[in-house]
Amino acid sequence: MRIEAVDLFYLTMPEVTDAGDGSQDALVVRVRAGEYTGWGECEASPLVSIAAQVCPMSHGACRPVGASVLGQGLDGPEDIARMRDLVKMHSMDLLQAAHTWSGIEMALWDILGQARGAPVWRLLGYDKAYPKTPYASMLFGDDPEGTLQGAKAARAQNYRAVKMGWGPYGQGSVALDAEHVMAAREGLGPEGILLIDAGQIWREDVAAAAARLPALQEAGATWLEEPFTGHALDAYGTLAAQSPVRLAGGEAAHNAEMARHLIDYGRVGFIQIDCGRIGGLAPAKEVADHAVAKGVTYVNHTFTSHLALAASLQPFVGLEEHRICEYPFTPKAVALALSDRHILPDANGEIVLPDAPGLGIAGNPEGMRDYLVDVEIRVQGKVLYQTPAL
Amino acid sequence: MRIEAVDLFYLTMPEVTDAGDGSQDALVVRVRAGEYTGWGECEASPLVSIAAQVCPMSHGACRPVGASVLGQGLDGPEDIARMRDLVKMHSMDLLQAAHTWSGIEMALWDILGQARGAPVWRLLGYDKAYPKTPYASMLFGDDPEGTLQGAKAARAQNYRAVKMGWGPYGQGSVALDAEHVMAAREGLGPEGILLIDAGQIWREDVAAAAARLPALQEAGATWLEEPFTGHALDAYGTLAAQSPVRLAGGEAAHNAEMARHLIDYGRVGFIQIDCGRIGGLAPAKEVADHAVAKGVTYVNHTFTSHLALAASLQPFVGLEEHRICEYPFTPKAVALALSDRHILPDANGEIVLPDAPGLGIAGNPEGMRDYLVDVEIRVQGKVLYQTPAL
Repeated sequence: MRIEAVDLFYLTMPEVTDAGDGSQDALVVRVRAGEYTGWGECEASPLVSIAAQVCPMSHGACRPVGASVLGQGLDGPEDIARMRDLVKMHSMDLLQAAHTWSGIEMALWDILGQARGAPVWRLLGYDKAYPKTPYASMLFGDDPEGTLQGAKAARAQNYRAVKMGWGPYGQGSVALDAEHVMAAREGLGPEGILLIDAGQIWREDVAAAAARLPALQEAGATWLEEPFTGHALDAYGTLAAQSPVRLAGGEAAHNAEMARHLIDYGRVGFIQIDCGRIGGLAPAKEVADHAVAKGVTYVNHTFTSHLALAASLQPFVGLEEHRICEYPFTPKAVALALSDRHILPDANGEIVLPDAPGLGIAGNPEGMRDYLVDVEIRVQGKVLYQTPAL
Repeated sequence: MRIEAVDLFYLTMPEVTDAGDGSQDALVVRVRAGEYTGWGECEASPLVSIAAQVCPMSHGACRPVGASVLGQGLDGPEDIARMRDLVKMHSMDLLQAAHTWSGIEMALWDILGQARGAPVWRLLGYDKAYPKTPYASMLFGDDPEGTLQGAKAARAQNYRAVKMGWGPYGQGSVALDAEHVMAAREGLGPEGILLIDAGQIWREDVAAAAARLPALQEAGATWLEEPFTGHALDAYGTLAAQSPVRLAGGEAAHNAEMARHLIDYGRVGFIQIDCGRIGGLAPAKEVADHAVAKGVTYVNHTFTSHLALAASLQPFVGLEEHRICEYPFTPKAVALALSDRHILPDANGEIVLPDAPGLGIAGNPEGMRDYLVDVEIRVQGKVLYQTPAL
């Protein structure tokens, strides 16, 4: 079959704040090929990613992503690999291309899975989909009391694992950060899995990160996430060598190599991949294979919708030992509305992928309509993009 | 003073081909602060980089670049560093941000230099600007005869160094590639500096690159450039360990860390920085310092205008031993028209930076007018970008 249409839908909440909450808007991708409709989602600036899909060619190595996808044949995984190679060569100098391609790639796998009547994880090489233990991902409270209440709320909802991140953490004193971490532990209870996310706050400053380690160890944190910028391999490696708490990172990876380097040179213990940024499911599976080989645990990065969640589970759902997964705990309404179903924790507090062909979750045009953003991009009087009909 | 305006101008040739010629379009940046006008240039997809400047905020770590620049104070280098940090934190999840910021950052240095009556290289910490030996950067011919003629033409114009790249190289047989390399050497003469650019053609395939080494050695090539993708540190390191010819790379670096890793892990002998991608002049200077410490030679990457050339020389013009520099040999008319002056080789075949405050070369509104692209971006009926008046 041929890829006949790639439509990008920019969705948003009526009001977007500067909180570190990535579920306030979304870029949903719909691909049509033959009789199938596939869905995907970019974890990226919607407007900029749309521009990367439709921009005029600058030269042979700076072409729009769309030029490498539209009209291409799609009959097997080798076609997705071929298009990936086209994007890499023809959009080499288009930095945003990886983010745009990520959502498209998911939708291509969704279509292949539907055509073969198989879940995507099977096409990726797994025999079985194992349940995952979701962690409730939330922002630190404005003060330790707020953090305590947040952790308590998650526990009350049967979550055995909680991640606290961003907000005031790392912005004030070491002592205040310790109070937040202890409050999170108290709210979660002694048995819960506690994860701490610094949101790159210390850039490349190893000493600033190291000063927080004693409190993290005392609170029994399972990991310290993103102490540094996504490219700070040396800082990661230096901190890892002295840290009693394992490091986690990788969400910024926009190709498989970046994630591999964070494992090999940055010595993280957990590699966190956002399929909506790294180029979709195939490079994520490549990272999962590398993580297994290196004794590192793979974890998804998902702070948005259940469509993104369904996609992000595929590359590691066959790894029984890689147990915890990020779960959007309090997504904004737009993130819930955009998919046709949701993945809810069962009585054991675990989640399982829907047993269905493709990704198992589709876009929900009806739900998206209320959040759809009207965009028009004109170049030399020609309309390159106009929000398509849902 | 305050930054009052940041205007982006998308320029293009009437026709853009899929040749690997990056001078077919341009994104010029004009910044106004106090009584000064500064100029810069992004080496990037113009439309996508414009979108990154004006896009709506997605969340606290995915804001438009413009939000971190407009209205800011600009009185010294520390203000540029402060804005860089703002962009890094507030546009963390906006992949294209580095490319947009690059041109703005140059313009900020240009303004600071003008305000202090000093060339930018002095503000970057150098005492003296040394002449550079330009290499004529050109594409391989369609066949070895074409390559021969190209190299002869460069030699006839007094160039002592030539870089041949892209075109058919690496796409056919090892034997054909050898013929091209030998033809380039013949055209250039036995004394000339010969540089070969593979344009990432082998992705991560070390064996394919290694098969070309004997011919490169026989032809006395000074470097093999970009055999692999910009993030393929392991492939670079493996090839470097077995290559009699030094490797060159780095043009894809969109932050200083990427370039540092290519030196430390990829073991390149030449680090090539495009100031229009890496985030401007300060991170490029940081890379130059690291190169000096590691015994690696810094080279600019410039395939576009003389405005970009003037900017790209600043971070290493004070390094006497880092002698050769990339020089746009046959740029398209738009690239020549956009700047108010040009840097021409002297009788010795060397170039020197204009002795003037700031970058020493400014944008030329008159020349740009013929190439200006009319762009309009509308979101929810609101115009976020419209081509500004020149």
